[in-house]
Amino acid sequence: MLSFFLRVRQQTESLCAPLATEDYSVQPIVDVSPPKWHLAHTTWFFEQFVLVPYKPDYTCFDPDFAFLFNSYYNHAGDRVLRPNRGLMTRPTVEQVIVYRKYVTDHVADLLRNDPKQEVLDLIEIGFHHEQQHQELLAYDIKYILGHQPTFPSFETSLHLTPEKSEMSFIPIEDGIRTIGHQRTGFCFDNELAPHRVFLEPYAIADRLVTNAEYLDFIADGGYQRFELWHADGWNHIRDQGISAPHYWHLVDGRWHAYSYTGFTPVDPDLPVMHVSYYEASAFAEWKGMRLPTEFEWEAAADRFNWGKLWEWTGSAYLPYPGFSKAPGALGEYNGKFMVNQHVLRGASFATPKGHSRPTYRNFFHPHLRWMFSGIRLAQTSAS
Amino acid sequence: MLSFFLRVRQQTESLCAPLATEDYSVQPIVDVSPPKWHLAHTTWFFEQFVLVPYKPDYTCFDPDFAFLFNSYYNHAGDRVLRPNRGLMTRPTVEQVIVYRKYVTDHVADLLRNDPKQEVLDLIEIGFHHEQQHQELLAYDIKYILGHQPTFPSFETSLHLTPEKSEMSFIPIEDGIRTIGHQRTGFCFDNELAPHRVFLEPYAIADRLVTNAEYLDFIADGGYQRFELWHADGWNHIRDQGISAPHYWHLVDGRWHAYSYTGFTPVDPDLPVMHVSYYEASAFAEWKGMRLPTEFEWEAAADRFNWGKLWEWTGSAYLPYPGFSKAPGALGEYNGKFMVNQHVLRGASFATPKGHSRPTYRNFFHPHLRWMFSGIRLAQTSAS
Amino acid sequence: MLSFFLRVRQQTESLCAPLATEDYSVQPIVDVSPPKWHLAHTTWFFEQFVLVPYKPDYTCFDPDFAFLFNSYYNHAGDRVLRPNRGLMTRPTVEQVIVYRKYVTDHVADLLRNDPKQEVLDLIEIGFHHEQQHQELLAYDIKYILGHQPTFPSFETSLHLTPEKSEMSFIPIEDGIRTIGHQRTGFCFDNELAPHRVFLEPYAIADRLVTNAEYLDFIADGGYQRFELWHADGWNHIRDQGISAPHYWHLVDGRWHAYSYTGFTPVDPDLPVMHVSYYEASAFAEWKGMRLPTEFEWEAAADRFNWGKLWEWTGSAYLPYPGFSKAPGALGEYNGKFMVNQHVLRGASFATPKGHSRPTYRNFFHPHLRWMFSGIRLAQTSAS
Amino acid sequence: MLSFFLRVRQQTESLCAPLATEDYSVQPIVDVSPPKWHLAHTTWFFEQFVLVPYKPDYTCFDPDFAFLFNSYYNHAGDRVLRPNRGLMTRPTVEQVIVYRKYVTDHVADLLRNDPKQEVLDLIEIGFHHEQQHQELLAYDIKYILGHQPTFPSFETSLHLTPEKSEMSFIPIEDGIRTIGHQRTGFCFDNELAPHRVFLEPYAIADRLVTNAEYLDFIADGGYQRFELWHADGWNHIRDQGISAPHYWHLVDGRWHAYSYTGFTPVDPDLPVMHVSYYEASAFAEWKGMRLPTEFEWEAAADRFNWGKLWEWTGSAYLPYPGFSKAPGALGEYNGKFMVNQHVLRGASFATPKGHSRPTYRNFFHPHLRWMFSGIRLAQTSAS
Repeated sequence: MLSFFLRVRQQTESLCAPLATEDYSVQPIVDVSPPKWHLAHTTWFFEQFVLVPYKPDYTCFDPDFAFLFNSYYNHAGDRVLRPNRGLMTRPTVEQVIVYRKYVTDHVADLLRNDPKQEVLDLIEIGFHHEQQHQELLAYDIKYILGHQPTFPSFETSLHLTPEKSEMSFIPIEDGIRTIGHQRTGFCFDNELAPHRVFLEPYAIADRLVTNAEYLDFIADGGYQRFELWHADGWNHIRDQGISAPHYWHLVDGRWHAYSYTGFTPVDPDLPVMHVSYYEASAFAEWKGMRLPTEFEWEAAADRFNWGKLWEWTGSAYLPYPGFSKAPGALGEYNGKFMVNQHVLRGASFATPKGHSRPTYRNFFHPHLRWMFSGIRLAQTSAS
Repeated sequence: MLSFFLRVRQQTESLCAPLATEDYSVQPIVDVSPPKWHLAHTTWFFEQFVLVPYKPDYTCFDPDFAFLFNSYYNHAGDRVLRPNRGLMTRPTVEQVIVYRKYVTDHVADLLRNDPKQEVLDLIEIGFHHEQQHQELLAYDIKYILGHQPTFPSFETSLHLTPEKSEMSFIPIEDGIRTIGHQRTGFCFDNELAPHRVFLEPYAIADRLVTNAEYLDFIADGGYQRFELWHADGWNHIRDQGISAPHYWHLVDGRWHAYSYTGFTPVDPDLPVMHVSYYEASAFAEWKGMRLPTEFEWEAAADRFNWGKLWEWTGSAYLPYPGFSKAPGALGEYNGKFMVNQHVLRGASFATPKGHSRPTYRNFFHPHLRWMFSGIRLAQTSAS
Repeated sequence: MLSFFLRVRQQTESLCAPLATEDYSVQPIVDVSPPKWHLAHTTWFFEQFVLVPYKPDYTCFDPDFAFLFNSYYNHAGDRVLRPNRGLMTRPTVEQVIVYRKYVTDHVADLLRNDPKQEVLDLIEIGFHHEQQHQELLAYDIKYILGHQPTFPSFETSLHLTPEKSEMSFIPIEDGIRTIGHQRTGFCFDNELAPHRVFLEPYAIADRLVTNAEYLDFIADGGYQRFELWHADGWNHIRDQGISAPHYWHLVDGRWHAYSYTGFTPVDPDLPVMHVSYYEASAFAEWKGMRLPTEFEWEAAADRFNWGKLWEWTGSAYLPYPGFSKAPGALGEYNGKFMVNQHVLRGASFATPKGHSRPTYRNFFHPHLRWMFSGIRLAQTSAS
Repeated sequence: MLSFFLRVRQQTESLCAPLATEDYSVQPIVDVSPPKWHLAHTTWFFEQFVLVPYKPDYTCFDPDFAFLFNSYYNHAGDRVLRPNRGLMTRPTVEQVIVYRKYVTDHVADLLRNDPKQEVLDLIEIGFHHEQQHQELLAYDIKYILGHQPTFPSFETSLHLTPEKSEMSFIPIEDGIRTIGHQRTGFCFDNELAPHRVFLEPYAIADRLVTNAEYLDFIADGGYQRFELWHADGWNHIRDQGISAPHYWHLVDGRWHAYSYTGFTPVDPDLPVMHVSYYEASAFAEWKGMRLPTEFEWEAAADRFNWGKLWEWTGSAYLPYPGFSKAPGALGEYNGKFMVNQHVLRGASFATPKGHSRPTYRNFFHPHLRWMFSGIRLAQTSAS
């Protein structure tokens, strides 16, 4: 576990290494946190939940940091308001790197001294937590650079790969399925308890929707046809002036998009990315189809390729039967967000290796688009 | 059908009769429409969807009214923006009453001349639609009068009745159930298609939560304990300064509430009313229980008394498998609202007789409280 | 004074008489108060400041009304928040008319019993106050009816008259002038103290700017040329999408306007009306001229015709040297508004007879347009 | 002029030198620009208005920078929206320093080659412009650091000095004075034309109001007594929860303030600083006095000490008689801001040496407090 822990910590820092110091501190919208904040917050998580309670004689690196780098844990006290994360120019990036090393060394030290299972469990949550922030870093770095007027590129090995050209539908029979994590290896609390659901017969696509297909939707007036949209979605795209996925810009009549490699024409073979739940739903409606539920998705996950983009499902993010929150601060990890959001399943090209599994439940508000979201189609079959 | 049609039309007018002319035109919040608007909009619905397409030589009462009294039907063209309904002082109430009579007479005339089934179906939708607005009128009149600084009373036969003192839990076994309307009599499209769901074992309360129980929740610091709340709910009650159900005011240390009979101390035996989904969920969390899903509710509906208040469920408002929208404007009735809302089941004391059934799906955004909403508890049973 | 008092009270009621009951209660924007509110507030003013302190054994008509109909007098206690005036459906118009009669009778009674000068002074302020509200009623009624989608007309003797075709400039020599009211007859506190100002030489137009001239400004791109506008004005017209005076609408390429007589093509010979300070300034800039200061206006007032529309001046609303606030509530009448507003001089066709004088200082925020405002040009002369 | 130019450029960089890289890029509120932006914008000003039009064969450092670093010059084309200045992480601080050197060298080169007067005039405006930004940098750096939760100190030679303990009033006689710059040396266009004003007799304080005096105002309920405030001011302090000058915090019952040296108890002998026009006016009202007009200030400026803090006057920022805007972009420097702001006179301890003069007109919106503003009292004398 020690070497895995050290590798996760190192990966976070490697991911950020190509940034300029100025890029680390900015928060262009409330959803996007400064990279410096991610570096410090993931560190605070280990300090607060592992070192403070379990390391004898541990001295906090800086007592102010609990206030500065707590995200949303009411149990852990007051904190900087989320919209103000970008105003913290101090501590500097350099100081945060020192803080990371200090905490990494202390946790490593703890791990070397044969800690009890309870501590190992918390450290395990800690690096799954840090892996989640690695993926958020990928989103937030893209947002920060992709909203510079000059569209700078970003050096990274993360990249999206094309889909095959044909889309086929895999038929799935009706019946009772067990959904949720059945306890081999780590899972988050929201994947529990495993429980039975009944699925009516359906068919699910064997690949994601591509940019080529999405361009057809745009060309067919998809953003102007109210009958394809939820009422909330229609209001949202009209209020915000949305007529294409996020990062898309029309230049001389041709759609371009920003990616880590810079600003280039939209590649028709890549899966469409940076769409909201509203857009995913409207696209499916236009196709005369629908999105899969998260149960349909999970029941069929071993029948198709996934892992390029998080896939919007038609399921609202709600507790499973038998779900219960952990006591204390870690009980705030998932449960309190189970309203007003939709479930995304799968993983993206920015998801750290080993962090994904078929029962994993990601979730975002339906209007959000800065994460690496995509579309898979489904259809109800005649029973 | 003619006599039923005429009765529904008459009931709407009787409900409003005790209002002062001034009460008919005001829109204190965007969710509350002026009573005059309800009177005219339900009339426009018959004119637009029945008379214009199916009555030969029909002349519209006033060509401006389609613009003034369309609610949200994009298919039916432009309309007054929802927040501006309260600014329309013209037509006057008197003119709207004339409009109602004109359309009622024309529809009655159509009904007397043996119309084809298609027309009968539309008229049936029309009076179910008008019954829905009767219930909204009950909410909106209460809001308008209950926010006068002088708390005037309102003459009506609608009233809430007390719950029995003991709360028991009805155990329900696991198994597959068929959910949704199975086509005897009228239903809305959102009750279709009937489909199978698997329910894990659970228990459901045999009565609603009372004011006495809710006062205990308040006294126990329910509104100050973040761990009981959804994150969105906690933010909402703090931003809005909410510390009790809507219409409640603390006077000299004692909770009072506005009802149609005026401003009086809270009656402990009545079911608690005017709570949001957030409040219902927090109350259930405080009890160590949860809200039922809409499927659990429907599967057990014949085992308990219901019909006093609409009951929040833990289910998001989503389409059933096999749901499909009608073509044209009536396809906008339900489907486009299937995101960001929660399902309420049952009926309230303001629901017109004959308008409720166990498969009926009502829905509201989770923060709303002006409707007649209440709380029923459920628990997951050991399997 | 009794007969004048009774006439003022009667005039207010006559002005409103053609309204429908529904028109009395609505507040379409925060600046526009419901006519019912004006009727009651002017009455409360007499009750609060005359009857309660000076009429022996006077019983308030309704103790709630002080809360309902106080406008902005902090000295007189809490009150309904200004944006909520339109939500008060109770008391009804009929009850307010009864209230008016009750208070009118009591004040008349007081006047018949030879009151002391202090009481006479307060009653005098009271009917000047009521006359100000008569003019506001003219604005607010126009706004309420002019924003109905159906543009109803309104029966009134108030109407604007055309300007002569030629505009000439009256040259005024430099020198010291005494500005402010020199105490013959009634004035408001903001017209005091009289004081000396030095005016450099200038010239001032002998009539208002007409619609014909303003149409030229529009046709010449006046609303698209940033260099003509204040920065705040430019932002305002762009944010609000303003491209013509208030009440103007372009129909088939021709400008129309709403007036009390309905919706008709803009009359080129009438003075332009319903312009903001920003628009008045931009027009003057386009002409290569400027607006007069309030001192220039007052110094030349006997040299030109005025009284059709309130005339924007280039002067901010500030206290004169020697200005002092009255003690108590009436000290809130003017002084606390002396920031962020601009002075308008003159009178309008809706100003009650006898209410205007050359020293009268009217004032509004620079972006407002619903009042009867117009433009007079001035120029600095070579010295 | 060359050496003066080089010194001004150097001073800007020296002022910023103690900042961390992270401090340069942040914009905590819309009024506060990132220090990096100031460094680049003052450079762009020379590039845009001097080098591009007047240096033969000049090549812009980077064509994107005109878009990135234009402030508000509509004549100079589109630009980054003001609230987005803090989102520009690129170019980096290091790149901006290179940009500065490039432009400084080119301007120096131009100056060495005997340019014509027109160019010298523009360069002179350029370094007065840069000096204004030096003062804004002092404000903005304080805001950025003073809103870090950790209150870091900042190394600078700028500091405020105490006032003498006695306040006396200097009587000034009535009479005609000439106001405005009379053309010896540089001035901004808003100081023109010189013109005559008549002043009634008044008295003006010989020092600024101190923290000790302001603490008395607070202790006497100054922030709770509506009768002392403008209506707009009262609404503002209540909406924003303001009960002391900006940067003041109550710690254990004692007022502390942030300054460049850190967070310390309020020094009673220093002049009170960081007050809005509303606060300055309310304080004067509480004293039974008033603020001087800008004319009274200028007429008496040689009779008292000034230069510690900018002094709020009772005068709105309006054009002088005979004011005219320059053609082209530089005409946007002052004129378009002449509405909705109040004039401050004097200078502050952060005003660069040589940048102040008695006719200088500074101006801010009445609610602003982040600049170095203070209070001088005046009284109207009996005439």
